[in-house]
Amino acid sequence: MPNPTAAILIIGDEILSGRTRDANMHHLAGELTRIGITLKEVRMVADEKPAIVAAVNALRASHDHLFTSGGIGPTHDDITADAVAEAFGLTLGIREDARALLAAHYDRAGLEFNAARQRMARIPEGASLIENPISIAPGFSLGNVHVLAGVPNIFQAMVASLLPRLAGGKPLLSQTLRIDQGEGVIAGPLGMLAAEFADLSIGSYPFIQNGAYGANIVIRGSDPARIDLAMSKLAALFPKGGA
Amino acid sequence: MPNPTAAILIIGDEILSGRTRDANMHHLAGELTRIGITLKEVRMVADEKPAIVAAVNALRASHDHLFTSGGIGPTHDDITADAVAEAFGLTLGIREDARALLAAHYDRAGLEFNAARQRMARIPEGASLIENPISIAPGFSLGNVHVLAGVPNIFQAMVASLLPRLAGGKPLLSQTLRIDQGEGVIAGPLGMLAAEFADLSIGSYPFIQNGAYGANIVIRGSDPARIDLAMSKLAALFPKGGA
Repeated sequence: MPNPTAAILIIGDEILSGRTRDANMHHLAGELTRIGITLKEVRMVADEKPAIVAAVNALRASHDHLFTSGGIGPTHDDITADAVAEAFGLTLGIREDARALLAAHYDRAGLEFNAARQRMARIPEGASLIENPISIAPGFSLGNVHVLAGVPNIFQAMVASLLPRLAGGKPLLSQTLRIDQGEGVIAGPLGMLAAEFADLSIGSYPFIQNGAYGANIVIRGSDPARIDLAMSKLAALFPKGGA
Repeated sequence: MPNPTAAILIIGDEILSGRTRDANMHHLAGELTRIGITLKEVRMVADEKPAIVAAVNALRASHDHLFTSGGIGPTHDDITADAVAEAFGLTLGIREDARALLAAHYDRAGLEFNAARQRMARIPEGASLIENPISIAPGFSLGNVHVLAGVPNIFQAMVASLLPRLAGGKPLLSQTLRIDQGEGVIAGPLGMLAAEFADLSIGSYPFIQNGAYGANIVIRGSDPARIDLAMSKLAALFPKGGA
């Protein structure tokens, strides 16, 4: 059975303006690879409800899981929960379990549980909460859509809460060989190897280092014996890393 | 007249597996902001032709410009030119001007202009070449689709070659105020300010630093006087950064 597939939707003007560099996609991509869920697509959209609704509906239909990042705080530009509810045709109100979690948190901290903070208890009916051990305001899973915070350490904590609940597949394994020759030299033999090992994914990632061309050849798959065999043939084609 | 819009398509398994962290989106996002082209969407897909063709066709139809990154080298997994040609319903053959550029380059370097290297001269008819001063193999613009390399320094050089050709709009300006209070405190007054300045984009980007909550409030727009006015009202709402 093939591994489950996933998409990630990153929400936020600050990413698209170039002000902030996203860190969450790279973190989650590595975690999904580790547990055998295949990340097929990432989208990044602005803080605009129609764009978020359209992306949520496209990606939840075409993948086993959709993870979103960003837009679940208390400010006016936090509209992800509204957009996800709209994508599912649900209304969004304050939910009692989320409200109670937040009320207790602000009570302990001696802070007012004001209207802005109560906004973070707006969770669609039928969703299950995703624990946020850092700032308490929960994420949620609704169907196959998992709604997570954008602040990187909260995002990572939510990923750690959520992933053990999801059924993974075979971890995607990989081995890398660095070859210190240009891709123009590597390409011919590598293409034949890729055709011979069509059950594996063989990628060539070129680099320039101190003015010299090279490439990292990455062989990926779920069967370690096949990867070993392909890697030994690759190494024989380019002895001593091709240098 | 509103600014032109753009999308970016990042192509490559190595990004989706979490092995490599993309750097090109962040670079181009900043450059587009500078010249007044509004980046509305980013997608990242695997090295799979149907996924690339579908993304190219969706994004070129919905934005004024589409920039792609990755997949134009000489190896078997470099299929972006094929996918773009297919998206436009064109065939793809060796083009003489690109072939001549590459032949002269490899001749100067004393390297064989082999079949793999000739693959990089496959440019759709009607496209204009994008100069690559680093490794010569050109990118190309076909209609509103701009096809660029994935290696970061080559990508950046191609962006520098290409952007002066594109008509920009008003640069997106921004000012930032750091407020050392939680978003739950900031949200109410900030929401009223955002409603008053509906012509601007006002975003709140929370952080946790040494265990204390704060947020950077970013006010964006193209009219510097309006941004100044909104920023002065914001500063009055949160004197001394709210601390």
